[in-house]
Amino acid sequence: MAHAPDAPSPRTRVRLKPTRGHYERETIEAILDEALIGHLGFVVDGEPRVIPTLQARVGDHVYFHGSPASGALSALASGATVCLTVSLVDGLVLARAVKHHSVNYRSVVVFGRARMIVDRLEHLAALEAFTERILPGRWAEARPPTENERKAAAVLALPLDEASAKVRTGPPLDDEEDYALEVWAGVVPLDTRPQTPVADPRLPAEVGLPRSVRRLLEREDGRSTAT
Amino acid sequence: MAHAPDAPSPRTRVRLKPTRGHYERETIEAILDEALIGHLGFVVDGEPRVIPTLQARVGDHVYFHGSPASGALSALASGATVCLTVSLVDGLVLARAVKHHSVNYRSVVVFGRARMIVDRLEHLAALEAFTERILPGRWAEARPPTENERKAAAVLALPLDEASAKVRTGPPLDDEEDYALEVWAGVVPLDTRPQTPVADPRLPAEVGLPRSVRRLLEREDGRSTAT
Repeated sequence: MAHAPDAPSPRTRVRLKPTRGHYERETIEAILDEALIGHLGFVVDGEPRVIPTLQARVGDHVYFHGSPASGALSALASGATVCLTVSLVDGLVLARAVKHHSVNYRSVVVFGRARMIVDRLEHLAALEAFTERILPGRWAEARPPTENERKAAAVLALPLDEASAKVRTGPPLDDEEDYALEVWAGVVPLDTRPQTPVADPRLPAEVGLPRSVRRLLEREDGRSTAT
Repeated sequence: MAHAPDAPSPRTRVRLKPTRGHYERETIEAILDEALIGHLGFVVDGEPRVIPTLQARVGDHVYFHGSPASGALSALASGATVCLTVSLVDGLVLARAVKHHSVNYRSVVVFGRARMIVDRLEHLAALEAFTERILPGRWAEARPPTENERKAAAVLALPLDEASAKVRTGPPLDDEEDYALEVWAGVVPLDTRPQTPVADPRLPAEVGLPRSVRRLLEREDGRSTAT
């Protein structure tokens, strides 16, 4: 742990169970790159709002969708601080004592001021990142956005300058005297997996599964065989 | 839709894509009862904070864990408004056009003031609900909390008076002219499933899988056969 970087700011420092805090960019990026959605927090009239949103990281920024119709998001673009939290639940932690039941998880919290993307190339790169976050390889298969569609798709960028991760892994940690109990303890891993694709009812029968979906399912088969 | 109730308050009304808004208690409870974690938003010094937290519903309240060590949560218990958002991602929505890519999801937003549970029986019921939310049947298997452990486990209760759900289901919705494109479109369902349990390294070999875990895996086998 000697080389582990410290929190970039007081508000990103993991205070409760500080040993679960991680501030390395690599850990933070890996969590963001695995999650489909994040939970975006912002303040409206002094009160908190939390909305789920698609998120995608590109380099030093995490992007999220806005809509010009959403007053809240235009407020964000004008420089209010937001908090984007991304969480992955990895397993059920079953301890001998009720008290130590938990879940294994990986989460990232990013604080900062979001900016609306205006540059055309950055905007297209962000839209590509969203599409590829939903399914790698999909950007090349689907009809690209027209200029008007691009302009209508507001995207906000949040820098990763002030980010931290919190991770729980491994077996339950019971109180020493409880290890003598004859209660099963361990972890039930959880895994989110793609299921059999459902074609759009209006899709002609001759249009087969695209490469992106086939790859996803093949990767899945590989994992099932390996475990 | 004639009998569907309206939003309980302006801040819970789904404004963007209002047809996705649902205000029936049944829909809201089903989403809360399926999710392990929620994202709790609150305001500190005028800025948003969003933390992932275990959540469990009992009747008209959703409970979440606090810790007496966490200054933020004691502030919450003193009556500040919080926003708890719970989201389930159900599938990748692959449209013909990049523009209409999305995910199928179910989410709930609850606004309100949380109160710290002090009543002993309500407190025990909440701790039971957390344990059963992690794994049904587990409360009866694990060592129950002592009185001191119970007192140390701060739990907050948030009433469901001001809650709304937002749900996207079904196939992609492309622009009419794009249905002629020869691009595969449809949904790849996602499902979070339990994997092979990993026993605690300190567990004696003779302690077999408990009923709660066996049931979970049996239910899983039933689902795999059914699909």
